[in-house]
Amino acid sequence: MIIQLEKGISVDQLNKLKEKLANIQYKTTEVKTQYGDYVICVGKNEFDIRSIGTLGGIKDIHQVSDAYKLVSKKWKVEDTQVDLGEGLKIGTGEFALMAGPCSIESEEQIKSTIDHLVKNGVRVMRGGVYKPRSSPYSFRGLGMDGLKLWYSLAKEAGIKIITEVMMTEQIEQMFDYVDIFQVGARNSQNFNLLDALGEVDKPVMLKRGMSGTVEELLQSAEYIFSHGNERIMLCERGIRTYEKAYRNTMDINAIAILKEKSHLPVIADPSHGIGVRRFVPKVALASVMAGADGVIFEVHHTPEKAFSDGQQTLNYRESTALIKNLKNAFRFREELVQ
Amino acid sequence: MIIQLEKGISVDQLNKLKEKLANIQYKTTEVKTQYGDYVICVGKNEFDIRSIGTLGGIKDIHQVSDAYKLVSKKWKVEDTQVDLGEGLKIGTGEFALMAGPCSIESEEQIKSTIDHLVKNGVRVMRGGVYKPRSSPYSFRGLGMDGLKLWYSLAKEAGIKIITEVMMTEQIEQMFDYVDIFQVGARNSQNFNLLDALGEVDKPVMLKRGMSGTVEELLQSAEYIFSHGNERIMLCERGIRTYEKAYRNTMDINAIAILKEKSHLPVIADPSHGIGVRRFVPKVALASVMAGADGVIFEVHHTPEKAFSDGQQTLNYRESTALIKNLKNAFRFREELVQ
Amino acid sequence: MIIQLEKGISVDQLNKLKEKLANIQYKTTEVKTQYGDYVICVGKNEFDIRSIGTLGGIKDIHQVSDAYKLVSKKWKVEDTQVDLGEGLKIGTGEFALMAGPCSIESEEQIKSTIDHLVKNGVRVMRGGVYKPRSSPYSFRGLGMDGLKLWYSLAKEAGIKIITEVMMTEQIEQMFDYVDIFQVGARNSQNFNLLDALGEVDKPVMLKRGMSGTVEELLQSAEYIFSHGNERIMLCERGIRTYEKAYRNTMDINAIAILKEKSHLPVIADPSHGIGVRRFVPKVALASVMAGADGVIFEVHHTPEKAFSDGQQTLNYRESTALIKNLKNAFRFREELVQ
Amino acid sequence: MIIQLEKGISVDQLNKLKEKLANIQYKTTEVKTQYGDYVICVGKNEFDIRSIGTLGGIKDIHQVSDAYKLVSKKWKVEDTQVDLGEGLKIGTGEFALMAGPCSIESEEQIKSTIDHLVKNGVRVMRGGVYKPRSSPYSFRGLGMDGLKLWYSLAKEAGIKIITEVMMTEQIEQMFDYVDIFQVGARNSQNFNLLDALGEVDKPVMLKRGMSGTVEELLQSAEYIFSHGNERIMLCERGIRTYEKAYRNTMDINAIAILKEKSHLPVIADPSHGIGVRRFVPKVALASVMAGADGVIFEVHHTPEKAFSDGQQTLNYRESTALIKNLKNAFRFREELVQ
Repeated sequence: MIIQLEKGISVDQLNKLKEKLANIQYKTTEVKTQYGDYVICVGKNEFDIRSIGTLGGIKDIHQVSDAYKLVSKKWKVEDTQVDLGEGLKIGTGEFALMAGPCSIESEEQIKSTIDHLVKNGVRVMRGGVYKPRSSPYSFRGLGMDGLKLWYSLAKEAGIKIITEVMMTEQIEQMFDYVDIFQVGARNSQNFNLLDALGEVDKPVMLKRGMSGTVEELLQSAEYIFSHGNERIMLCERGIRTYEKAYRNTMDINAIAILKEKSHLPVIADPSHGIGVRRFVPKVALASVMAGADGVIFEVHHTPEKAFSDGQQTLNYRESTALIKNLKNAFRFREELVQ
Repeated sequence: MIIQLEKGISVDQLNKLKEKLANIQYKTTEVKTQYGDYVICVGKNEFDIRSIGTLGGIKDIHQVSDAYKLVSKKWKVEDTQVDLGEGLKIGTGEFALMAGPCSIESEEQIKSTIDHLVKNGVRVMRGGVYKPRSSPYSFRGLGMDGLKLWYSLAKEAGIKIITEVMMTEQIEQMFDYVDIFQVGARNSQNFNLLDALGEVDKPVMLKRGMSGTVEELLQSAEYIFSHGNERIMLCERGIRTYEKAYRNTMDINAIAILKEKSHLPVIADPSHGIGVRRFVPKVALASVMAGADGVIFEVHHTPEKAFSDGQQTLNYRESTALIKNLKNAFRFREELVQ
Repeated sequence: MIIQLEKGISVDQLNKLKEKLANIQYKTTEVKTQYGDYVICVGKNEFDIRSIGTLGGIKDIHQVSDAYKLVSKKWKVEDTQVDLGEGLKIGTGEFALMAGPCSIESEEQIKSTIDHLVKNGVRVMRGGVYKPRSSPYSFRGLGMDGLKLWYSLAKEAGIKIITEVMMTEQIEQMFDYVDIFQVGARNSQNFNLLDALGEVDKPVMLKRGMSGTVEELLQSAEYIFSHGNERIMLCERGIRTYEKAYRNTMDINAIAILKEKSHLPVIADPSHGIGVRRFVPKVALASVMAGADGVIFEVHHTPEKAFSDGQQTLNYRESTALIKNLKNAFRFREELVQ
Repeated sequence: MIIQLEKGISVDQLNKLKEKLANIQYKTTEVKTQYGDYVICVGKNEFDIRSIGTLGGIKDIHQVSDAYKLVSKKWKVEDTQVDLGEGLKIGTGEFALMAGPCSIESEEQIKSTIDHLVKNGVRVMRGGVYKPRSSPYSFRGLGMDGLKLWYSLAKEAGIKIITEVMMTEQIEQMFDYVDIFQVGARNSQNFNLLDALGEVDKPVMLKRGMSGTVEELLQSAEYIFSHGNERIMLCERGIRTYEKAYRNTMDINAIAILKEKSHLPVIADPSHGIGVRRFVPKVALASVMAGADGVIFEVHHTPEKAFSDGQQTLNYRESTALIKNLKNAFRFREELVQ
């Protein structure tokens, strides 16, 4: 159960509410985000909901029986829109495009990418400065130096930055240089990291785990929300299955279902979703049809020479075509017969 | 290696070829289909391909190192089009729509479905008369009586029939009443059935196994082709994964990859691919973007009362909208920026 | 619900029972096996079970709510023992060992294998004469000629034969030469084949499908039982997962669970369960600890030269050691502290 | 390639080595652990290994082509033994038993568990004080207070403590109260945490990820080793598959394979491996046969009332029987015919 509180609820009123809930043996969690105050209640005893609804300081009460609560569409029927500032919004009719290299590599590479994005009207650039790698002997990213350089160049060009944060300690130092914190697949259930990201007022894009369920993804998002941050995007990036004809199995079913279960925007990552360059555009377009609010993909001026993920990275020509097609596909989707 | 033979190759020439191949220790399989004669050769020794190419009666030679040969795009670069007669073709620019109930249930149901399809310009009707069911106590279909009734009604209305064949013995009796034989997911590696379907001149739609790989699907198609029947369509219908938020995981990656690896048409089955009615249209449209040559879906006048699969079956209103959207999506795909 | 009938139930009594069940709208299936007569009833209405139990000709009534009925332990609490004749029994304290090559290849190979088995006290020999192969160009077995030759040699040595049957038409011709019909993983849901094997009085070992669930395996066994044949063994042979460090993932959990859910003997196939020769003994021994009633494994006088599956086939030395260890392990299991 | 250095290698000698490696364009990582100094080299150019082997200060050189190096058996053929002090060793003939509740709950519970372990000769107690939970509203553990209490009670009884660490910041505060740091399945690829655990001199038990591959597990262990800590144990705890008849699929194949690929001890976790109490003993015993160096399982004085994982937790009676059986099984394994 979610109890939405009035902004001006008094301490007395809150105490009365908590007492009432304690009486019926409900476990409560108080949540205070940038947009609202809530009490999340978990319990089993039946009671008359009006006995709470008529208390002072209460805005609304919602029964949500799912394991996740605040990220559920059951209480917040209208979709959430994540505002990045400067007129850039994601969700509810605003289709998001994010592109860039797997790893930030050099000033030249950053400039070239920004140039490509600006030309094609893409306003968010992706790129890793902290890279999770299976092997300790692989390139692990340029770190803060890379991020600061990138930031200075992107800022100038009006380009927003999305990049992966891997540990709690990095949040503070990265904060000023990042527009969207990305949580990678391997950290999708790193609950301490999620807690910490709930405590900052900056959008977070949360990737589904390598073999995470739809429900686990939503519960992970609940960690962020319940720690105070409502600005969350979910990201489908393919799951691990028995099939080895490609890298991951893009789960478009999950996109459709996430859009129904949650009010949060859903971003598709076709680059990881199939992992083979020449198929990325098809998977990207399919994701739009499945209901994605945006697409994030990998692009590099010379993919063959990329430090990482070159095999799934588009070159500029391919990227330019894909961007046009995605914009048209989004418009096509708007015009579907209902 | 595939050796295409001239139609008029003489016995002498063929013997000479086989002798030559025996000399270099290649294992050969002679294949005679409705469209051509081939010799499939498997071996390891290196040899001068010209020593065979200059023999009489040989049309062409192709190196195909995949486990599958005749269904590969490596030797037959242009896509295969399956001709159903009466101007109805599938593949290479002809987008196929097939719809109908999970099971054929009654005369009234058949008539109603045909009426719905005719109104919406769909020319192939699906429906099961032999149903593979996990439990022996479930409804297993109306059998030949149902098929004959269906045939008489469909014929009249100019509607083609696709239905599942479950065992070799059924092929002959069903032959005259069927336009496309469907091989179900559970029989995707029933090699005797595939052999037997290779011996008839009737299109076959082969579904991917519950957890079949892309390569296994192509090898199963190779069974049909190498036994004499080139009129094959492949069908992606979702795979089995750990995720339980839906019935199967629609594998759109496989659609994109099958279109590259094989010259055969690929049909998407979004009804089984997600298994939840309200998401079927999104998955269907996504499949078109991934490159499908057609879509097969389940429709019923009152899905709630269907004998089987009601939860994933569209009603007429939903079906009508989907058909329009699919046709538009196919046109949209044709106009993508390359 | 399972209603066990008295052997001497009269037509009148049976009709009365069926009428009663029809009145409460239960769907019934009559089952007649080599050991008993049953009526399987599926329905939802509540009724007083005594109103049926007091009818004439009824031996017992069991509520079984699982999707499978006759193979469930809920009605038949004591384990089933499959009798192969000549004092050879499988299940309930009789540990079964079956070994032999993947494929029957030659007279010399058969003789050598029989010799090896006799020396080691193994009384059932496995071997394929009809081989399901992913590719149509692979060796598909010696067929009936091979089986007849094998039979004549095995009979003489007192060795029983287990071999795979792939299609209904083969059952009759194989019948006299086979002691246990094996249903392979790819045919685990070939329901027509299961129906037909239910109509013969010969033991059947049913393998779990490549990605079959425990419940599906039991439902497939139910097909055989409900068509008249109670002499069934279940076989765990590894499932398909994302892991590629080995061929299949041996599912010992399934062995433990099958032993609880069903009264049928469970045989472990460690050769396919891991697919790598040097690990087969460990997996075999683990399966015994998980509760298997027997082990079937692949052995060949020169595995490197086997026509198929050589990489997972033991040589005689390895096989001899494994057999000794398995017998000891079985004894060790009997002595576990409860 | 792994280059083992002499303990007394001079700066000059090391520089000469590095120069040499730079010349042949090998990327190097210097590793200094509690037991040895190594240089890990990754490169492609061929060269004469003697040109390095004859340099001063070099103990040995090993070609290891796997993605993981230091944890591979290819260079360190004899198994690693992890010494916990006070005569307690794990690996190479010393079979490890670890047991305890899912979560540390109270003083009474700790005392009762210690009592049970002491009676049964188990010297390592498991228990969580920081609990990773899918939902933010679940019990997340007693934290440092619980750990300190536990430590004081365990110390007195001569019981060692294994408990999960979830984030880098916790390592230092937990260090004095822990004998083995456990890395949970969800953190199996939390590379920053692994890095940090490489920097302490305390044994680490690393669990395989929910859908981690054998290779990924070894690469994660490589993170710890290459950051300086050789005292690592690997833990198989079941993987995520399509099967829902139990919680996870215990992968005994992985145990057998890990023992071949790595010199590190392998611990089996049957409680998570199947997730159903009454099957835990069978899976535990199977794991021993597959080659495990130890077993960790969940036990609680009243499992029905456990704060978490009660459904897979043994009671004392079951635990006592299992411990006896495991000890016997380990002895039985030692006596297998080779």
